[in-house]
Amino acid sequence: MHLAAREFDLIAKYFRRDKASRRDVKLGIGDDGAVLSLSGEVDLVVTTDTMVAGVHFDQRLSPKAIGHKLIAVNLSDLAAMGAEPTWLSLAITLPDINEDWLAEFSAGLLTLADYYHCSLIGGDVTRGPLTLTVTAHGLVPEGRAIQRGGAQPGDRIYVSGTLGDARAALESERGALEIDKKHLEYFTERLHFPSPRVGLGQALRGVATSAIDLSDGLDSDLRHILAASKMGAKIFTEQLPASNALRETMPKEHKRIGLQAFAGDDYELCFTVSEGRRGSLETISKQLGVPVTCIGVITKDPGLHYLYKDEPLQLTSDGFSHFGDTE
Amino acid sequence: MHLAAREFDLIAKYFRRDKASRRDVKLGIGDDGAVLSLSGEVDLVVTTDTMVAGVHFDQRLSPKAIGHKLIAVNLSDLAAMGAEPTWLSLAITLPDINEDWLAEFSAGLLTLADYYHCSLIGGDVTRGPLTLTVTAHGLVPEGRAIQRGGAQPGDRIYVSGTLGDARAALESERGALEIDKKHLEYFTERLHFPSPRVGLGQALRGVATSAIDLSDGLDSDLRHILAASKMGAKIFTEQLPASNALRETMPKEHKRIGLQAFAGDDYELCFTVSEGRRGSLETISKQLGVPVTCIGVITKDPGLHYLYKDEPLQLTSDGFSHFGDTE
Repeated sequence: MHLAAREFDLIAKYFRRDKASRRDVKLGIGDDGAVLSLSGEVDLVVTTDTMVAGVHFDQRLSPKAIGHKLIAVNLSDLAAMGAEPTWLSLAITLPDINEDWLAEFSAGLLTLADYYHCSLIGGDVTRGPLTLTVTAHGLVPEGRAIQRGGAQPGDRIYVSGTLGDARAALESERGALEIDKKHLEYFTERLHFPSPRVGLGQALRGVATSAIDLSDGLDSDLRHILAASKMGAKIFTEQLPASNALRETMPKEHKRIGLQAFAGDDYELCFTVSEGRRGSLETISKQLGVPVTCIGVITKDPGLHYLYKDEPLQLTSDGFSHFGDTE
Repeated sequence: MHLAAREFDLIAKYFRRDKASRRDVKLGIGDDGAVLSLSGEVDLVVTTDTMVAGVHFDQRLSPKAIGHKLIAVNLSDLAAMGAEPTWLSLAITLPDINEDWLAEFSAGLLTLADYYHCSLIGGDVTRGPLTLTVTAHGLVPEGRAIQRGGAQPGDRIYVSGTLGDARAALESERGALEIDKKHLEYFTERLHFPSPRVGLGQALRGVATSAIDLSDGLDSDLRHILAASKMGAKIFTEQLPASNALRETMPKEHKRIGLQAFAGDDYELCFTVSEGRRGSLETISKQLGVPVTCIGVITKDPGLHYLYKDEPLQLTSDGFSHFGDTE
């Protein structure tokens, strides 16, 4: 949800080091979180996410939603690493001290943190343009963090939950999509109060060969897995899981699929599983009550290829046109 | 260097929890850093500092100095806890991508991090008003983190290095103090390239009963030790250590003492040592080549009392007037 890819590369150029870092840094810049050896039975996972008013959220948004989302996006990164969330540091820069705002913001933040038994351990409060940064810490059994680079040819690609709901809410707020009243609350909840897949992430340790959380959108985020794993993928677009609300709101499948593949803010997990572990995954999904859907397969050939019922597609966020339906 | 005390209390009200947090949180909000149990031989120390352009630094300042200071202020917090710095997470919010700026900024940041064998492990880069947040991690042998709350009656109060140089540089930049050319580089270096007392902090484990780093100024920071320890203090103001450059620049002692007691940005350590450990401290100081000066004593009676050659003083940042010299 942050900078464009070209800009990210530019930044990485100045901050990433090729030479050996500390030996206890198992994984540094470039995944959902860093993995640090604690010379014991557990590894520490650390991730940081910033939200800037006017860029990542509307300043008029409910402070409770802002507090919730700030924690959700960070816990989602930990989930993608298979980590159990433990501690949060909060850096808030505020233009002024508004007690009502603070009370609601902290309630949104702490309710979600408490739910996952995750403690706010400190931080910094400064004066300036509204900017919120959380550094979240989690623990994972030694060597068991799920990384982006482990996908193998033939691994199945899965996503949790459904895709596209948050974006539909955003489009509706912008006046670009009409949503039936009966679905409005559902969509708004999906956008402003995302549920990080904390339990699923931990259950995927030893089952998923790679994982990422869907913050920027499937197309963008899956490419990070492919780049880190040096693999390609085929996506069977007719399999992309859609909520009933989204199916009703966007009955034209080619439009809906375009939105689902490029929409961000869902905070679902995208992960790969070897053929042999698909049974384990089904068991996990049932036990947790979290639906997972197979949407594609990892290939040795590079590139991300979209198919619709076995036919290749040129897919954009506006949909695809090979139906003849060009509306 | 952040919010006024009243505002800080307000914030704490919304984010601090009284009820039991996670059992592995040994020390949460309210010290230089949090202390977390790793169920092993070491504890993890985590601290966060934010710098906002136009609030904590002038946007026109050399990016190298900004990068250096961002790391220095965080390492200084770790030093005050007695921790060995290990890993850094960086959240930068940038108004635009300026490659020259980034190259210089990262050089300033990484040079200091490398010096202390501390790895940049990740972070986030976002678009918005220039805001820089670092979360720094350090390790300390189990149970050995130095906290603010351990000062005992009769403990001696020490500071490292000299006080007031950074503020003198700031006053000079504002045109409020004239500095001789031959001292200008020294003062500027002290303001823009502070040296965190990383080695001293670690050596003070088991020797200091409490510690804090001097970011806001002696008066303000020592009061945090007193509040956490539920103690008072007497400060012998004629003992406040001043550099030769400061003595020459501010020959009037009462003016200089006022500045030294209230000046921030020195990033020296202020700590307390029991009578019986003063010998150990002298050895440490000699071995590290870091001067330390005894400036006062902890008292059971509450309050922070300033003395000049055994006479009580009313001290302000402008000095004190009982000399009869009111200039």
